[in-house]
Amino acid sequence: WRGGTALRNGRLFGVGDKSRTNMTENGLLHPERVLTLDTMNPNIKRVEYAVRGPIVQRAMQLEKELQEGVKKPFTEVIKANIGDCHAMGQQPITFFRQVLALCSYPELLNDNKFPEDAKDRARRILQACGGGSIGAYSASQGIELVRQDVSRYIVRRDGGVPSNPDNIYLSTGASDAIATMLKLLVSGEGPTRTGVMISIPQYPLYSAALADLGAIQINYYLDESNNWSLAVGELRRALEAARKHCNPRALCVINPGNPTGQVQSRQCIEDVIRFAAEENLFLMADEVYQDNVYAEGCQFHSFKKVLFEMGPKYSEKVELASFHSTSKCYMGECGFRGGYMEVINLDPAVKAQLTKLVSVRLCPPVPGQALLDLVVNPPQPDEPSYSTFMNERTAVLAALAEKARMTEEILNKVPGIRCNPVQGAMYSFPQIQIPHKAIEEAKGQAPDMFYCMTLLDEMGICVVPGSGFGQRDGTYHFRMTILPPTDKLKIFLAKVKEFHQRFTERYS
Amino acid sequence: WRGGTALRNGRLFGVGDKSRTNMTENGLLHPERVLTLDTMNPNIKRVEYAVRGPIVQRAMQLEKELQEGVKKPFTEVIKANIGDCHAMGQQPITFFRQVLALCSYPELLNDNKFPEDAKDRARRILQACGGGSIGAYSASQGIELVRQDVSRYIVRRDGGVPSNPDNIYLSTGASDAIATMLKLLVSGEGPTRTGVMISIPQYPLYSAALADLGAIQINYYLDESNNWSLAVGELRRALEAARKHCNPRALCVINPGNPTGQVQSRQCIEDVIRFAAEENLFLMADEVYQDNVYAEGCQFHSFKKVLFEMGPKYSEKVELASFHSTSKCYMGECGFRGGYMEVINLDPAVKAQLTKLVSVRLCPPVPGQALLDLVVNPPQPDEPSYSTFMNERTAVLAALAEKARMTEEILNKVPGIRCNPVQGAMYSFPQIQIPHKAIEEAKGQAPDMFYCMTLLDEMGICVVPGSGFGQRDGTYHFRMTILPPTDKLKIFLAKVKEFHQRFTERYS
Repeated sequence: WRGGTALRNGRLFGVGDKSRTNMTENGLLHPERVLTLDTMNPNIKRVEYAVRGPIVQRAMQLEKELQEGVKKPFTEVIKANIGDCHAMGQQPITFFRQVLALCSYPELLNDNKFPEDAKDRARRILQACGGGSIGAYSASQGIELVRQDVSRYIVRRDGGVPSNPDNIYLSTGASDAIATMLKLLVSGEGPTRTGVMISIPQYPLYSAALADLGAIQINYYLDESNNWSLAVGELRRALEAARKHCNPRALCVINPGNPTGQVQSRQCIEDVIRFAAEENLFLMADEVYQDNVYAEGCQFHSFKKVLFEMGPKYSEKVELASFHSTSKCYMGECGFRGGYMEVINLDPAVKAQLTKLVSVRLCPPVPGQALLDLVVNPPQPDEPSYSTFMNERTAVLAALAEKARMTEEILNKVPGIRCNPVQGAMYSFPQIQIPHKAIEEAKGQAPDMFYCMTLLDEMGICVVPGSGFGQRDGTYHFRMTILPPTDKLKIFLAKVKEFHQRFTERYS
Repeated sequence: WRGGTALRNGRLFGVGDKSRTNMTENGLLHPERVLTLDTMNPNIKRVEYAVRGPIVQRAMQLEKELQEGVKKPFTEVIKANIGDCHAMGQQPITFFRQVLALCSYPELLNDNKFPEDAKDRARRILQACGGGSIGAYSASQGIELVRQDVSRYIVRRDGGVPSNPDNIYLSTGASDAIATMLKLLVSGEGPTRTGVMISIPQYPLYSAALADLGAIQINYYLDESNNWSLAVGELRRALEAARKHCNPRALCVINPGNPTGQVQSRQCIEDVIRFAAEENLFLMADEVYQDNVYAEGCQFHSFKKVLFEMGPKYSEKVELASFHSTSKCYMGECGFRGGYMEVINLDPAVKAQLTKLVSVRLCPPVPGQALLDLVVNPPQPDEPSYSTFMNERTAVLAALAEKARMTEEILNKVPGIRCNPVQGAMYSFPQIQIPHKAIEEAKGQAPDMFYCMTLLDEMGICVVPGSGFGQRDGTYHFRMTILPPTDKLKIFLAKVKEFHQRFTERYS
């Protein structure tokens, strides 16, 4: 069906840009299409998502070429572009996968190879599913039992601060819940259009969701010279500038930071909450890395906990949505797309609208809900799977801590690269010096994209340019995960070092 | 934290509607909220989703009351509001669940209780996953292997019409893909705003997605007196009327029909394609019930197949997206949220935008992708699981066919109820006569909502009012699934009959 001519249709575009758009695969002009770059949703064209952008497509192409026997200056592509734990060799938690297998094929409940606690959990989850099957739809907000378990987890985590299962919404990964919450918030046109404050550097889900919604992105800059900390003065500057052209209504914070790896102090969180209260901003706390804290002296404080410890003046006023996921921490189960959000002080009428909105997609994936239930309700000390579970959990987190330390240490030894400690999360976001000649050579391209593309082509190393996350003008960075196995990470960092020296010499 | 007063904050709303919105749980006025009904996204307020609307919330409340021992004129609520197969007692396909258990816990690959073909499938899927784990992200478009298997399935289904895996996008159920495709299509403002043609009655995902996007819904009516068939004359009428106030760009068709249960003839599909070609409309074919065809003389024809059989004049021109899901057919695995769409003649530049857009959500749930792979690549005649698989599949579809027939037969015996045959899908959409006095009694409420609420309260029967799907003015319907087990469905239909007679007498 690729043969024949497409010219029989009289209505043709044939000039300029449109001729490209309307070319068929065999090079003929295509009859007028309904959906073209010119006629599609203009917001979508503005969406960018660097973590899976051109650099990753190039990496996949290189991998294909290597497989086909094409000679390269490297024998494998090491991808550190995305926090994809299992893809980098991290092993699943045995207990979680046992329960998921039992839920998938309940026949196995008769198999004595499975520990009793795994069977108990599976029975408990299945009983909470329609018809006793994870193949049934759940309630749109998520299985009630799982929401109750999430609430209990939050209460334990936050030292007794109460949590209400009615305020828990299970989601398809954290991204889904974040995009949904942003969607609820967006209204107005022109100078009353909703503005949302996001950190720079940011995780590009935020900029992508805001572009999609046609909302106004308000950048506040993290202080690189101070371990990527967040200063209220900078929040205020950004807010005041934004008020001239939009209606700022929400403030997003990522803690521990992505891509920047900082862990916020309790004081900083208090300051942010006070600021949100004073300025009437809806707070969104992305806390998906809450178990990923490595640096000594650092500790994870949830926004919810700090909010309630600040007393009713804040805890009864500030609207907060906080997000968690099954994709990160020690389990790294990205493929299951599990997650939840907790909403605090949300207007009950808006909550009803939120519940209605999520019902349109029927429900989050039930296997992901089951997995989330295990994450928030893991084996207890008196249960048979406890010691294996704890060993596995501890091993993953200890290895990440070691890799965080190693990454910082090795990168900081490279002249022209400077990075902050990876206090938490799974990423380093080093600043790189790019010589003027290289910036010229990059031409239209962002200089750090040029740098990263060259790094990929010459060394088989895949990292994401800082421009995909945002950075202060004139500074350049890349984001790399610390996920490769220790041996591979060492090779990786040695290659980065070698490349940076070579690149700097070449363009000096 | 519910104690204390919320009045300390000076900025208060205190009048009219807003006082409701800003009431705290203990009845005090809440300090000014950022996010209220007045300030939230206005499009979301317009979203409606009857399938999980107030009637279902009431049903859940009644179930709770029954559990708590509250006396009712019934002992159980029978829910026929949603196509949730497993919740209604349908059993999962053994082979599918075996493979999913193996993928979840690959340790089981050493267990000789599992058939070899299930192990082969699991190994094949795991090899296609990052790090050999379904816990890794997949490519945003979906696992390449699964997309290849989907393509092969389509080629077989459509008698050899070619399919390209690059045109397959895996999704989080069909709803996700449909909403994504609609999002790409929406542009313009005022009289150039995108309009999308949908059947009335429709599946409310369409109206909900269009409201969310602020697109214009263009209703075309199916012909109830002619088995809910689709007539091109009606398409033309609707299109011409719509052109006066918007820019109609897409035409959505659901076949087999939801909620109407008709199966379109090949001729009808040809007519629709010709109309789309002439009028330059993007075609969206919702074909999630493609295995659910029961009536003699009816057969499923995919839009893709018919398009290609109409020759290059159409197959090279008409832009088509067709949708499928793991939630329906004989497997009914709603909870896994698996699905795919195939795009035909999509502008390559728009395809690149689509790929970018789906990457923001990272990937569809991988267990759902694995399940989809099994659906499109089930056991073959020479494999050990074949006969069990075929027996299970046949039994489900035969039971549905019998229930389709029974539903039609019993409902049509009730004076004042009239329904078309359930040729396919999983629903009956009978027309009900509602007496004038009942319409008056309903007051502001839609009369069929009043009818269905009364049916629920008096009989414990949960169906969805026709007004949630759309219907010709002055006609009333409800949608019921044919999914309850045969015994229960008989009781169900007997109760509907009894209720309708009683209701009619009461208001005559």
